Amino acid sequence: MKIILDAMGGDNAPDANIKGTINAINKIKAEVILVGKEEIIRNKVKEFYGKEIEEISNRIKIKNATETIEMEDIPTKAIKNKKDSSMVVGFKMLKENEGDVFISAGNSGALLTGATLIVGRIKGIDRPALAGILPAYHSRLVLIDAGSNTNCKPINLLQFAQMSSIYIKNTFGVEHPKIGLLNIGTEETKGNELVKESYNLLKEKAEELNINFIGNIEGREAFSGKVDAIVADGFTGNVFLKTTEGLGKFVKASLTESLKKNWLSKLCAIPTLPAINRFKKTMDYKTYGGALFLGVKKPVVKAHGSSDAKLFEYTIIQAEKFVENKAVDKMIEEFQIK
Amino acid sequence: MKIILDAMGGDNAPDANIKGTINAINKIKAEVILVGKEEIIRNKVKEFYGKEIEEISNRIKIKNATETIEMEDIPTKAIKNKKDSSMVVGFKMLKENEGDVFISAGNSGALLTGATLIVGRIKGIDRPALAGILPAYHSRLVLIDAGSNTNCKPINLLQFAQMSSIYIKNTFGVEHPKIGLLNIGTEETKGNELVKESYNLLKEKAEELNINFIGNIEGREAFSGKVDAIVADGFTGNVFLKTTEGLGKFVKASLTESLKKNWLSKLCAIPTLPAINRFKKTMDYKTYGGALFLGVKKPVVKAHGSSDAKLFEYTIIQAEKFVENKAVDKMIEEFQIK
Repeated sequence: MKIILDAMGGDNAPDANIKGTINAINKIKAEVILVGKEEIIRNKVKEFYGKEIEEISNRIKIKNATETIEMEDIPTKAIKNKKDSSMVVGFKMLKENEGDVFISAGNSGALLTGATLIVGRIKGIDRPALAGILPAYHSRLVLIDAGSNTNCKPINLLQFAQMSSIYIKNTFGVEHPKIGLLNIGTEETKGNELVKESYNLLKEKAEELNINFIGNIEGREAFSGKVDAIVADGFTGNVFLKTTEGLGKFVKASLTESLKKNWLSKLCAIPTLPAINRFKKTMDYKTYGGALFLGVKKPVVKAHGSSDAKLFEYTIIQAEKFVENKAVDKMIEEFQIK
Repeated sequence: MKIILDAMGGDNAPDANIKGTINAINKIKAEVILVGKEEIIRNKVKEFYGKEIEEISNRIKIKNATETIEMEDIPTKAIKNKKDSSMVVGFKMLKENEGDVFISAGNSGALLTGATLIVGRIKGIDRPALAGILPAYHSRLVLIDAGSNTNCKPINLLQFAQMSSIYIKNTFGVEHPKIGLLNIGTEETKGNELVKESYNLLKEKAEELNINFIGNIEGREAFSGKVDAIVADGFTGNVFLKTTEGLGKFVKASLTESLKKNWLSKLCAIPTLPAINRFKKTMDYKTYGGALFLGVKKPVVKAHGSSDAKLFEYTIIQAEKFVENKAVDKMIEEFQIK
């Protein structure tokens, strides 16, 4: 197996990308191909580790790409014009079977455009979407769309429900994954226009498309373990995702502070630290490593834009699992049958 | 001062409403008028406390109202047809100066309709909105609209920004409250159509309307203390609110469980409990008690639909503060000047 990694994408590129790869390499079986400016990558490796990349592992390769797509670039333009960017080169390698999965922490819009234009949509899917994995009570929660399509129609949300259903079944072995629609109340009359229409469409088509649609779900129930996936347009989904992230940070800061408030709690906090750390890990959705673009013909993983070395490491490990589970192949199969 | 409380509104009415009032009465100076079915209220008090309501406090009164607006009722119809409902009677008392603030945990849509139709909008405001108060790092965060207007236009979001700015200045003494627009990125090109247009309008009008607009804010930064209020349409705002609530619950459950994982952490957890409880309290936005409807001529407070006795108690205490701060009078003044 070969994992293609955009070495130039993300807020901490290329340092975090390179370090994450080197951290991950002995925890996976796959080969990792770093796509980016070869000279820069080689120099960074020498600077960080005092040796050549080949001396570190024979499973890390470099593919030279002279350009970089920036966060400010307009997605469609960037994909069309920056032919030798790390992202476009990575996508082409994926398309031409020079690798099994492509990971990037770069410009999300460009990633969606590239996935659609270069790799191509699965037949029957109008818009691919980002499926993020978050921790939930004694389980996990798939959020689709986590942020790629800011303006959606009901048909898109129906397809998100279908895709997440197939994905969860094949990846986590859940026989009839429970799919909920993110809304502000459980009654069917609740929500904005998009959500009301999507509710009706989902209810109408659920049986035919084999979706276990459990109705509207409010954010307050999202993490209870009652639902396996929540479906939303990319704007609302991304607000949801980033709110959990913000609150997670706030929780950690407040908790640490609370435990240090007086000498007694400070002293007593020391032996409870393993429990606190275990808890922090549960909270940290970053450990789930990256989100998969569902609806494209090959596995494309969006790493968090602000990924550090640790997060790249997790994302690479997770990407290997995505490929092993053949989630995308099974998606193509199921949509062919329908 | 007189606080009017809808005794029949909310998931746990009238039990929680009655108990909360009795818990609160010795912590406030105001009188509380319970609006609802008198016989039921009297019987419940006897059942819970073994005495008549007058024996408990001479500052708790009852105003009889024979009907109840249910959660399933269509807001406009309910307000027009159920003339003797606890909500409509409460609103009319507020309008006719028989009380200084009205609190209800009932049907949100009906509450908005009643506030607008019976109490009336402040001149210059197209749509009143719910301003919720959440905890944030070393501070608090005002969220407007927390859920009353599911479909909004840019002008509404501009007015939400204006109202929250005036409210925070007068209630919390912050001279130039920092107002952010809830979005999925900080760049001005990010977001759905509503958010993009609202961004431009806010930028254009901020100086003229004395709004300290700091631009887009992502959920991940919302609790950092960098912003005093976040503005959103009621759908997105409510998703944000309920997500924080859901994650809060999940955090508490996971934390408690982590600390009980083995005998060592269990034993050591005992002396750290005060710190944990302090932390849980910080997390619990319920302690901030209720959300104020900004943009109507008198103070109207929406209590959480699933309020228990504790939460009614907090909301009543907070309502007294709202009236003392004269937040609504100051809002009317400032809009008259403009």
